[in-house]
Amino acid sequence: SRFEYVKTFEQDFPMLPNTYLVVRVDGRSFHKFTTEHEFTKPNDTKGLGLMNDCALSVFREFPDVVLGYGQSDEYSFVLRRSSNLYSRRASKITTGIVSVFAASYVYLWPKWFLTKPLKYVPSFDGRIVAYPSDQNIRDYISWRQADCHINNLYNTCFWNLVLRSGMTEAEANKALQGTQAAQKNEILFQKFQINYNQESAMFRKGSILVRAKLKQQKQQQQQTAPDVSAPMVDSVPSASSTPDVEILHDDVIGQTFWDTYTILQ
Amino acid sequence: SRFEYVKTFEQDFPMLPNTYLVVRVDGRSFHKFTTEHEFTKPNDTKGLGLMNDCALSVFREFPDVVLGYGQSDEYSFVLRRSSNLYSRRASKITTGIVSVFAASYVYLWPKWFLTKPLKYVPSFDGRIVAYPSDQNIRDYISWRQADCHINNLYNTCFWNLVLRSGMTEAEANKALQGTQAAQKNEILFQKFQINYNQESAMFRKGSILVRAKLKQQKQQQQQTAPDVSAPMVDSVPSASSTPDVEILHDDVIGQTFWDTYTILQ
Amino acid sequence: SRFEYVKTFEQDFPMLPNTYLVVRVDGRSFHKFTTEHEFTKPNDTKGLGLMNDCALSVFREFPDVVLGYGQSDEYSFVLRRSSNLYSRRASKITTGIVSVFAASYVYLWPKWFLTKPLKYVPSFDGRIVAYPSDQNIRDYISWRQADCHINNLYNTCFWNLVLRSGMTEAEANKALQGTQAAQKNEILFQKFQINYNQESAMFRKGSILVRAKLKQQKQQQQQTAPDVSAPMVDSVPSASSTPDVEILHDDVIGQTFWDTYTILQ
Amino acid sequence: SRFEYVKTFEQDFPMLPNTYLVVRVDGRSFHKFTTEHEFTKPNDTKGLGLMNDCALSVFREFPDVVLGYGQSDEYSFVLRRSSNLYSRRASKITTGIVSVFAASYVYLWPKWFLTKPLKYVPSFDGRIVAYPSDQNIRDYISWRQADCHINNLYNTCFWNLVLRSGMTEAEANKALQGTQAAQKNEILFQKFQINYNQESAMFRKGSILVRAKLKQQKQQQQQTAPDVSAPMVDSVPSASSTPDVEILHDDVIGQTFWDTYTILQ
Ligand SMILES: Nc1nc2c(ncn2[C@H]2C[C@H](O)[C@@H](COP(=O)(O)OP(=O)(O)OP(=O)(O)O)O2)c(=O)[nH]1
Ligand SMILES: Nc1nc2c(ncn2[C@H]2C[C@H](O)[C@@H](COP(=O)(O)OP(=O)(O)OP(=O)(O)O)O2)c(=O)[nH]1
Ligand SMILES: Nc1nc2c(ncn2[C@H]2C[C@H](O)[C@@H](COP(=O)(O)OP(=O)(O)OP(=O)(O)O)O2)c(=O)[nH]1
Ligand SMILES: Nc1nc2c(ncn2[C@H]2C[C@H](O)[C@@H](COP(=O)(O)OP(=O)(O)OP(=O)(O)O)O2)c(=O)[nH]1
Ligand SMILES: O=P(O)(O)OP(=O)(O)OP(=O)(O)O
Ligand SMILES: O=P(O)(O)OP(=O)(O)OP(=O)(O)O
Ligand SMILES: O=P(O)(O)OP(=O)(O)OP(=O)(O)O
Ligand SMILES: O=P(O)(O)OP(=O)(O)OP(=O)(O)O
Ligand SMILES: [Mg+2]
Ligand SMILES: [Mg+2]
Ligand SMILES: [Mg+2]
Ligand SMILES: [Mg+2]
Ligand SMILES: [Mg+2]
Ligand SMILES: [Mg+2]
Ligand SMILES: [Mg+2]
Ligand SMILES: [Mg+2]
Ligand SMILES: [Mg+2]
Ligand SMILES: [Mg+2]
Ligand SMILES: [Mg+2]
Ligand SMILES: [Mg+2]
Repeated sequence: SRFEYVKTFEQDFPMLPNTYLVVRVDGRSFHKFTTEHEFTKPNDTKGLGLMNDCALSVFREFPDVVLGYGQSDEYSFVLRRSSNLYSRRASKITTGIVSVFAASYVYLWPKWFLTKPLKYVPSFDGRIVAYPSDQNIRDYISWRQADCHINNLYNTCFWNLVLRSGMTEAEANKALQGTQAAQKNEILFQKFQINYNQESAMFRKGSILVRAKLKQQKQQQQQTAPDVSAPMVDSVPSASSTPDVEILHDDVIGQTFWDTYTILQ
Repeated sequence: SRFEYVKTFEQDFPMLPNTYLVVRVDGRSFHKFTTEHEFTKPNDTKGLGLMNDCALSVFREFPDVVLGYGQSDEYSFVLRRSSNLYSRRASKITTGIVSVFAASYVYLWPKWFLTKPLKYVPSFDGRIVAYPSDQNIRDYISWRQADCHINNLYNTCFWNLVLRSGMTEAEANKALQGTQAAQKNEILFQKFQINYNQESAMFRKGSILVRAKLKQQKQQQQQTAPDVSAPMVDSVPSASSTPDVEILHDDVIGQTFWDTYTILQ
Repeated sequence: SRFEYVKTFEQDFPMLPNTYLVVRVDGRSFHKFTTEHEFTKPNDTKGLGLMNDCALSVFREFPDVVLGYGQSDEYSFVLRRSSNLYSRRASKITTGIVSVFAASYVYLWPKWFLTKPLKYVPSFDGRIVAYPSDQNIRDYISWRQADCHINNLYNTCFWNLVLRSGMTEAEANKALQGTQAAQKNEILFQKFQINYNQESAMFRKGSILVRAKLKQQKQQQQQTAPDVSAPMVDSVPSASSTPDVEILHDDVIGQTFWDTYTILQ
Repeated sequence: SRFEYVKTFEQDFPMLPNTYLVVRVDGRSFHKFTTEHEFTKPNDTKGLGLMNDCALSVFREFPDVVLGYGQSDEYSFVLRRSSNLYSRRASKITTGIVSVFAASYVYLWPKWFLTKPLKYVPSFDGRIVAYPSDQNIRDYISWRQADCHINNLYNTCFWNLVLRSGMTEAEANKALQGTQAAQKNEILFQKFQINYNQESAMFRKGSILVRAKLKQQKQQQQQTAPDVSAPMVDSVPSASSTPDVEILHDDVIGQTFWDTYTILQ
């Protein structure tokens, strides 16, 4: 038809070849969403389990995804650097992943929250970023895990002060202002007998998704130090229904993880 | 942390100011999805109603959306040219809309399909395009409606030939090859006593969403010609729960629609 | 060869169709260049004439350029909105224009500066911007002319204070700080008997290049008000060797210019 | 002023960090330019020397350029991967380099062509491409050198057939159609007693510019094989006036060059 010329206004943006592609999705206004749905503070085990389950959907749908990392209301997905998914068109990849994630969140909600009603539709923003080197992509994942650590240590103190010491939110905020990590550990231990390192690894480290086939055979000797933290509460359905994807809550800043799994190549 | 530098790799792409922005979402592999969920061929009234309902979610969430147009497994949303939504960042706008749409599709599924189970998670791709002039944006909408017309006329013939004349799909395809619109109308009328112009307007014209406040007051006189087509089957829930948005199935290629609604400004 | 895959890393960026394209070139480090080559302060008639002559080269080389505007060390070129030059590829258009301009500056230098040696190679940066509407492109040109006016009024005061009142640059700067346009006019008139409006129009308004064929026939009646400013010193070679391009020093903020020349269509 | 909003329409495109940036400039319509200026066929030593001299200008102006490669009417410049030149803004880098190159071509013309007049202004297009890995950037340079080899072998045969065997251009073209490299070498040797490997290295390999400080100290042992080809005709001015930049005509496809110069880091 004489209208078809409008198609030529589409500006395709292909991502640079030979780079790792990261798609990060993040809950839109999840401060409100988690409040309205009365998520446990600061961490809701079922909420995080649901996020991991949505990430598994993404792994099933996009074979080029080699690594996932989730914490709070966000999830990052790494595509292998040689991926030619959708000819690396930025919009296609980003919207494919974000819409699988968002639709899965609603689809899987009842599996995790049973009869608790979903009051309204949750949604996610998404972006795609290219990382040229192995170091860059490791630093990216480290950045998100460091962010997880900082926020979770703070939030654990904050909500214990509010919920168990009876402080107002303003008071708790003031009490923590300017404190270093060591001091926050101290507060937790002195006031609440909490050894932060024994808190749930999922809360402290976030969740890592990797394809099992990428696990190195010789990994017996390279064992990560045993995790002494509290075992994950298992009164929730298992997200791990896809046999070939593992969910870990390990450190990804050090070398061990990257020796154990051949993510980068 | 020392990892924060990776944030600088994000490449923001702001859409050109003073242009109409169109976000088009399209079902990913809906050939498969509609088959597996046994949608009526060629048009499933409930499926289209659900699409319209998802579009209403988008209207509720994004006040800058002034026009929606849907047909088949796709929906286009037009943002006013002065919109500063997310500072016009391409990814933010596109992923916001596509994830509201995708999550709504799952959320609203039971409202339209009752107990029919959703077998797996549907998803949508999305793209954003800038149109500089009023004529360009009208031509865009006309392009989609012309596409709807061409496909629907073809599909109506095709599925009547297959389902009512017992042709194989290959035979039906061959019978229609090279035929003009007039011949297709003739086939429908001669073989099946179908007056194509009396088919459901939603099937023939697609669905238009507009905010009621954009309706011109003087529109009594500028009335569009009464639609003589079959009334929409109303055994389905009403999508029109948002009072300020109207769902139309009118012609948008001619002048009347644009005189009736002040979309462009 | 097996190396050809590297060609696929090129990321073409086509400019949005149906928009005016502006390429603006600007002298790189012309503060230094004009100082080293002892340009007259604040305006060097030969220097500006050379800039106009370079712009004429651009007009000769690129028929889609419909308007040029120059002042100081910069020149803007407007391409008609329907231009399909290099399929609107951003790099091709920008580098084509900037390199014609830069090479012409060296090529034409002796025509304007005779035996004065060019001490080193001048160069220019360039950028391309899309403007969707007629108003936008008019505002763009107005922006540059308003910039010309503000800078030139200031510089005229500044250099008169320095060169004729014996102020240091710091003193002149301080004397002008916070002054309004009216006050600057007053200073010029009281201290130096200069009626700013009678200064050279090229200095006050900059230079406009238009193709003669775009001049309206009925323009006799729509005559612009006669320019009472000082005539351009004509001891310099004529840049206007291309008969079909006119060099004007008119106001382009008001309506008259746009009625006289059919630039926008 | 009220016009300043138009500045916001500029869409800056920063190149991805941590990638090698290549700017390639290429003569615009140099088929015509070299013909009109009667360049020697297929290689004009003075013309190539001028190109190298322009590239030296680029090296002087942009310290982040670590490698240059030139052949025919084109030159490529590699910026180190950590470069933050102009915050990596694509237009600024590209236009800076292309305009230095183009202006230098005119500026240095008389140094190489003496009194031969420059009939009109030459110009160059330019583009910028990001390469993520060391292998990619080596392959890029290899691509250009392989292109040089293929074209030069062909052109050497072609012009000898035309100029020394009296063939028409059509006949020469036909004679060479479908021939392999070995056959072309044979033609040269049998018909014209030309040992292609002893042709000027600049013609066969192109020109490489490197900063002397990047030369490895231990390079005595890693010596490249002595070049037995014809010495460069030296009746032309020396382009190598910048002491810290070396002009080579070596092989860059093999390993030796990259061991000798620390370009990549
Ligand atoms: N109670 C509770 N809240 C959570 C949990 N996970 C995330 N949240 C909340 C905490 C934050 O308010 C919010 C995530 O912060 P963001 O920076 O993403 O902000 P938000 O999503 O509100 O806005 P955005 O649309 O992303 O700009 O989600 C959880 O497990 N439990
Ligand atoms: N039976 C039935 N099928 C429909 C209806 N609406 C859309 N479809 C089907 C027909 C097409 O096979 C498909 C839409 O065509 P597309 O070109 O979007 O292809 P598809 O979504 O399969 O692939 P894509 O991921 O978009 O490239 O959806 C409907 O109401 N009823
Ligand atoms: N004396 C004299 N100077 C002029 C004339 N035209 C321009 N200039 C000088 C004044 C300014 O210092 C300079 C233009 O200012 P810009 O903002 O473009 O700065 P500049 O080119 O130094 O740096 P840039 O590379 O553009 O960031 O050129 C002239 O006619 N006479
Ligand atoms: N005679 C002669 N011609 C040369 C020499 N170096 C380059 N050329 C000519 C041969 C080609 O016709 C032309 C370069 O080919 P291109 O593919 O760059 O084409 P051209 O510049 O004509 O068009 P373009 O604007 O780049 O698309 O320059 C030389 O040393 N001697
Ligand atoms: O999806 P199609 O085939 O209708 O055409 P398109 O949407 O323009 O193609 P793509 O989805 O690949 O952009
Ligand atoms: O969303 P924030 O505040 O964590 O930070 P951001 O995601 O970098 O900001 P934006 O969502 O606006 O890109
Ligand atoms: O100019 P060519 O033909 O060598 O090939 P190209 O440079 O890749 O083409 P273009 O100049 O159009 O980008
Ligand atoms: O160069 P300036 O300072 O006039 O301002 P600009 O041109 O907008 O800045 P840049 O050259 O850095 O784009
Ligand atoms: Mg955010
Ligand atoms: Mg969020
Ligand atoms: Mg978040
Ligand atoms: Mg498609
Ligand atoms: Mg589809
Ligand atoms: Mg479709
Ligand atoms: Mg500037
Ligand atoms: Mg300047
Ligand atoms: Mg300037
Ligand atoms: Mg080319
Ligand atoms: Mg060329
Ligand atoms: Mg070339």
